[in-house]
Order: sequence, then structure tokens, then C-alpha cells
Amino acid sequence: MAKTEQLQQKLGDRLVLDPERIAHYAHDSSRAEPEGTALALVLAESTADVSAALAWANEAGVPVSVRGAGTGLVGGANAYPGGLIISLERMNRILELDAENRLATVEAGVITAELDAAARAQGLFFPPDPASARTSTVGGNIATNAGGLRCVAHGVTTDAVAGLEVVLADGRVMRTGARTRKNVVGLNLTSLMVGSEGTLGIITTATVRLKPVPPGIPRTFRASFASLQDAGRAVSLIVNGPAQPEVLELMDSWSVEIIESFHPSGLTAPGGAMLVGQTVGLDAQDKAEAITETCLGAGADDVEISESDSLLEARRLSNPALNARGLKISCDVGVPIAQLAEVFHGIDAISERHGLRVSTVAHAGDGNLHSTVESPDSREGIAAADAVIDEITRLALSLGGTISGEHGIGSVKRHELPWQQDAVTLDIQQSIKHALDPRGTLTPDRAI
Amino acid sequence: MAKTEQLQQKLGDRLVLDPERIAHYAHDSSRAEPEGTALALVLAESTADVSAALAWANEAGVPVSVRGAGTGLVGGANAYPGGLIISLERMNRILELDAENRLATVEAGVITAELDAAARAQGLFFPPDPASARTSTVGGNIATNAGGLRCVAHGVTTDAVAGLEVVLADGRVMRTGARTRKNVVGLNLTSLMVGSEGTLGIITTATVRLKPVPPGIPRTFRASFASLQDAGRAVSLIVNGPAQPEVLELMDSWSVEIIESFHPSGLTAPGGAMLVGQTVGLDAQDKAEAITETCLGAGADDVEISESDSLLEARRLSNPALNARGLKISCDVGVPIAQLAEVFHGIDAISERHGLRVSTVAHAGDGNLHSTVESPDSREGIAAADAVIDEITRLALSLGGTISGEHGIGSVKRHELPWQQDAVTLDIQQSIKHALDPRGTLTPDRAI
Repeated sequence: MAKTEQLQQKLGDRLVLDPERIAHYAHDSSRAEPEGTALALVLAESTADVSAALAWANEAGVPVSVRGAGTGLVGGANAYPGGLIISLERMNRILELDAENRLATVEAGVITAELDAAARAQGLFFPPDPASARTSTVGGNIATNAGGLRCVAHGVTTDAVAGLEVVLADGRVMRTGARTRKNVVGLNLTSLMVGSEGTLGIITTATVRLKPVPPGIPRTFRASFASLQDAGRAVSLIVNGPAQPEVLELMDSWSVEIIESFHPSGLTAPGGAMLVGQTVGLDAQDKAEAITETCLGAGADDVEISESDSLLEARRLSNPALNARGLKISCDVGVPIAQLAEVFHGIDAISERHGLRVSTVAHAGDGNLHSTVESPDSREGIAAADAVIDEITRLALSLGGTISGEHGIGSVKRHELPWQQDAVTLDIQQSIKHALDPRGTLTPDRAI
Repeated sequence: MAKTEQLQQKLGDRLVLDPERIAHYAHDSSRAEPEGTALALVLAESTADVSAALAWANEAGVPVSVRGAGTGLVGGANAYPGGLIISLERMNRILELDAENRLATVEAGVITAELDAAARAQGLFFPPDPASARTSTVGGNIATNAGGLRCVAHGVTTDAVAGLEVVLADGRVMRTGARTRKNVVGLNLTSLMVGSEGTLGIITTATVRLKPVPPGIPRTFRASFASLQDAGRAVSLIVNGPAQPEVLELMDSWSVEIIESFHPSGLTAPGGAMLVGQTVGLDAQDKAEAITETCLGAGADDVEISESDSLLEARRLSNPALNARGLKISCDVGVPIAQLAEVFHGIDAISERHGLRVSTVAHAGDGNLHSTVESPDSREGIAAADAVIDEITRLALSLGGTISGEHGIGSVKRHELPWQQDAVTLDIQQSIKHALDPRGTLTPDRAI
């Protein structure tokens, strides 16, 4: 076992050796279990702490896992046996909010919703909006290039990141990017770090782009369909239509049932699916009307427009609602938008063939689906559910899709990587990993 | 000298050895001169041609330069002495236009404006719009992460790139990215390649994102200011205001004079500066009125709104107009938008102190400036002009800016790299270069 004394001299009580406290930080929110007990936990309070911890671990040959709020869904932040956990949760200061340039610089451990609230106090907002925004951190969102509800309008997390401070495996500190909108200076190391899931460096601070809050009162809308495939077709029509939503989400009937039983609000979608979404701007009402018109034309049997947020709130609760039922065997596939109806059709067929119930919620506007399989909580049951997820994943790929839209790969999905990436791409990723982390200290054997 | 017979067997007459034909492909549009004579030129017609050429050069130790249409402005595509030039100009096919998913897949040598025209025939457009769009290629735009006139609304080239086919230094072919809007699968190799200026691989095909053409008739607007700094302040107000332009450009009075003498259209901006821009959508007129109101409030003495494109056309001609006067000593700096007035003030002071006239055009909406210095065409004159550009560049950096907004680094700006990037960043870039191109075959000693 590596000697922690030297590190303790530098970090004092920011180095935790108590196994009970360590255990609390040893796993994320996925079904992946840590493979063993970590050696120690660093509750970093500064970039210097992270640098000292990484330099020590790199020298000592201790594998490092990195953790924001632990809301990850693919085992990416789970502890390694004998490893060091570096938590960024104490690095939670908003360092600067430059409203005139629409930039904020924050430490990695700032809760995403708190950054958004600080921006809104100045008439701005932080576009990334993962369903976990009230508990997840900006640094964690960046490390997984998180998605969320507003991607159809504002893109993903990487689109909001202007620059990063990153601690490399050997403890050196690198600064990437610029405060300008355009910057063609050397390689785009900012985008390389975003979504790298802790394999290339530890993000300690980020400069992010904010946007002005649109004027007017947002409208939410709902459209209920008797058929999931009709709802899929409606999404393609909406996204290619003149009235663009800021949010466009789908829940199938079983998802609605699961959410209703977790948090009753009167929603039903018997046998089919429900689209919910939001429009913003001074013409929010006009756009919501145009979109619900499109839905009626595509076969919706009931539509609704509202100034209340409760429809989206239901969608935001899908993850806790599924968790409350013990449903954790799910996917995060994406397809090109025009293939939505086809993928829904295929999921139905797969579910039927396997005799296992599948519930699907989707960030429909960007083609990102989360299907969850219900199965007995036995080894056989889990294997059967995994087989369904594998089939859905291969279906998405066959339609030009992706194995992960927003959760990342971590340990849970690593076996799927070669399904999507060819041997050259896999090799080049390892070459870059080796160039930046030759000893394999940072989040080894995950994500790439 | 390396033996070209083996390559000729593979490429036939796509390998050119005639020095006169080679010379035509040996330089870009910058003032950088090739340092010597290239060995050969490959007029690639397929990914296989590029792969064969690179594998040969990598084995033979022959340095490779890559060329689209040769419109680069930093010497990035210039030939190496004894080197191989790979031209992509014959790879000019649009392979797919998938309107429903708003994606196009094109070979690297497709002219940017031709892709845009093909998209418009389907009600879509290609957002990147460099001033060179009618002659430059999609591959070249991607290799330099080109900017242009619409960045204030649509971002830069990288925001439009979904995936790439890239030939690596050893001839292997890699495919990056996905056809989906979201994709968190391994490292973001797509963004790493965009803007890498030929140092990591040769882009042979690209899958790019299109957007729907906004409904209604676009409006162009003009606002003339007696003071350049007032125009700069107006830009900050517009960009942070509720009415967002699709284009927002600035020309100082001397730029307007230079453009007018090249292509007379009746524009004048005595002593100050002119903002020109465009609004789109059904509310284009309302937005143009709101923006010109803002300009009047910020000190504009004359404004105009029009349905004609001639105001933007003048702006697009600034580069040929400057070239026609032999003015090539210029910069491509960027500043955060709120620092525009300050940078203009500083440029005036630098110009006065050096006794040299400076003309500035700017993609004002995204804070990207091109200042050009007039000086005698002698060794001393050029050195004096370079000193002015150096001071403007350091000024931009001191305001939180960048040494290149959209042209890249190439050979012309490579000495400026350490002004912006710290030693760790420079080192990591070299590590990545070495990982992907260990023999230093691809565009050596440039860009990073």
C-alpha cells in the first residue's frame, strides 16, 4: 500500500483516511459497484490541492477517480481498489460573473443550478440543463459533456465552455481556450477535455458562456398520442418546422405511469406517448400554438398549452421515479431525428420478442432516448434486461445513431465502444491518453 | 531526394512532378513565401489517394503540406522544400444531403458556397460564411476553424461539424463523430481535428450540420458614426440587447475608402466608422429598427435599413480591396465584446505613436478585428508595420483577447504562440502531435 504520510503533510485534514467517510464517496448513481476499497479521499479546496494529490498519486502509482456530486450514471467516478478519490465538491465558488461579456468563471464543484441562478440575477442563464442540474456540478457536467432538456435549442455542454483550467496526471496545471467567441490558436484542448470523463486531466475551473434570458413568459405545451410512432413522427415535423421549441421531450405511457405514481400530477398517456416542451420569447404563445397544431396534424388526440412549469417538472422527475422502482437497467442511445419513429417501432418489437416491459423517455428534439427495462432482480433477470438494452443499442447504431448521447461510457458501457468506434479511432484515443497520462493514473480503463 | 516512382505507380498522373505546375500549388494567399521547391504534388481524387500519398511520405521522411483552395492567410498550406503537396481540390463531390436530419456529407474540396447553394435548394443553409466562401473549400475551412460574417449568430465552423473522415500521418483512415446531435463516446476527436491546420491528419470528408433558412426577407442595416469608439460601444449594446443580428460588421473610415476605390458603391464614413449588418426572420424589419435605434442612441449620425445585400457585399470585398493596394500586413485578433471600444482606442494610439496609418475591419459582433498597416514596401517599412501589428496583438491579449480569431497560426503567427499559451499548453500540444504523427510528417513546425 502506498504511503500517504507525504500527501497528508501537504493536505492536512483535506486528506481523509476514515473508511466510512471514504465509502460515501466511492460510487456514483449508476448500478456499477466499486471493485474494492479506496485508499484515501481528497476533499480538494483548491487547484493546488488537486495538483498535489495527482502528483503524489502519479509518483506512487495509485489510480485516481474524480468526483463532483456523484450523479454520474455509468460508473465513471467509482473508486478503484487501493485508489485515491479526488472530490471537487468543496471547490464551489463562482469566481467571476462578467455580464457584459456573458462569461462566468467557476470552480468545478459549483452546482449547475446555482450557476444558473447567479446568471439569472443578471438577466442571463447557463444553457446546459441536465435533469440532475439541482445536484450535479459544472465540472461533472463538463467531464461528461452533459446534455439535458434544452439541447434542442442550445446544444450540449461543450457549446457553453470557453476555457478550462485542468490539472494533468503529473500535477502540472494547463489553461485552455480563451474569453473570446473565436480563437484559432493551437489545438482545441478545451473540447478535447470536455467529455473525456476524467481520463486526460481534472477540470478545476471553467469559463463558461451565458446567454440572455429571452423576454416574455415561457409557455409549456403537451400533446398526447395514441401511438408512440406518431409521436416520433411529430417530433421530426416540429424540429424541421418554422416554430422552434426550447425543450421537446417525450414520455411513453409506462413512463408517465411510473412518474405519476412517484409524484401524482394528473398526467395520463394510455397506450401511447406524450410530448411535452417549452417555447420562449415574445412569440412563445404563437410558437406553442404552431407546434401543437403540428401535433394534431400528426395524430395527437389531445393538446394543451400552459404558463405553468409542471409539465416539464414531471419529465425532470423521471430518473428519481425510475430509481424509486429499482429500475436501473437503461440506455442512453441517440438517433438522427428522422429515425425516431423507426427506433420506437424497433423498441416495441424488441420488448415484445423478449417479453420484457420497456419504458422510454426521450430528449426527443435531439433524438436522445433513455429506455429502461423491467425485469426480476435476479442474476438471470438482469442478464435478460441487459440483452434487451444491447439490442436497443445495436438498433440505434444501425440507424446511424450513438451508444451514448449524454451519460458517457464510464465502466458500464465500455464493452459497447467497439460497436461504434473502429480500431483506428480506439487506437488514436489510447495514443492521446498515453501522451497525456503515460502512467495511466487518471480514471484508468474507463471511457475510452 | 526521395524516390517518387513507387508513389507514381499508385497514383499515375495524379502525381505531378512538373515544377511549373507544382509552383502554382506551392503557396497560400498570405505574404509568407515557400522556403524552397517542393518535390511533387498529389492531385488526390479519393481518400485512398490521400492515404497512399501520406503512407509513402511518412515512410520516405518527406514533409507534407495540405491544400484546399489556397485561400489561407497564415502560410499554413505553403510547400516545404523537397516536400509533398497534397491538394484536395479534385475531391469536390457532395456525397449526401440528408434534409430531414439537416446533415450533409461532402468531400473536403467542395467549395463552401457550393455546399451552401445545394443546401438552400432544400430550404437549408450551411452556417459558416467566411469572406472567402466563394473560393475556399469546406476542408480548408474546417482545418482552420474558419469564422466569417455569421458567427455572431451561428458560431464558428466547428459548431457545424458533426463528424470527419481523416487520414493520419501513417496513411490509416479514422472516422470521428456521429450523425446525432449528441454523442459522448470517447474523446472528441472531431473538435481536436477542427482548427488543427493540417498538423494531425488530412480531412478527406466531413459530415456537417445545416440549418433551416429563416422565413421572410432579410434586412441589411447601416449606422455611421463620427467616432470609432462610439461604434464599438454600440456593438456591445446591440449584442447584449433583445434584437439579435445575424451579421454585425464594422469598417473604419479608411477601410471604407479602400473598398470604395476598389468597388464604388457610394459609401462614405468620414473620420469615423460604419456598422453594417443583417437581421433575418419574420421580424427582420423590427429587429433592424431596434438595432439602428440603439445605434442612434450610441451616437450614430446616420442610419439606413434596406432589403438589398449591397452593404454586406462591400464588407465582403475588404480583403481583395486591401490586396489590390498591396496591403498584406495585418492581424486577426479578437477581444471580449465589452472591450471593443477600448481596443479601438488603443489601436488609434498605436497608429499615432508609430506614425503609420491603420485600417480596421471587424466581425464586430464576435469581437474579431482585422487591422492592416500601411507602410513603405521596403525591409524597414515592413519591419515598422510588423511592430505595429505586434503592439495591437499584445493590446488584444492584455484585454483578455486572442492572437487569432479565425485565420489560424500557420507559419506567419507562430512566433506569437507563447504570447498567449503557457509552457504546459505548448508542451501538451506537442505531445499530442507526437502521438498522432511521431515522424513529424504532417505540416511540420507550423500552427502549434
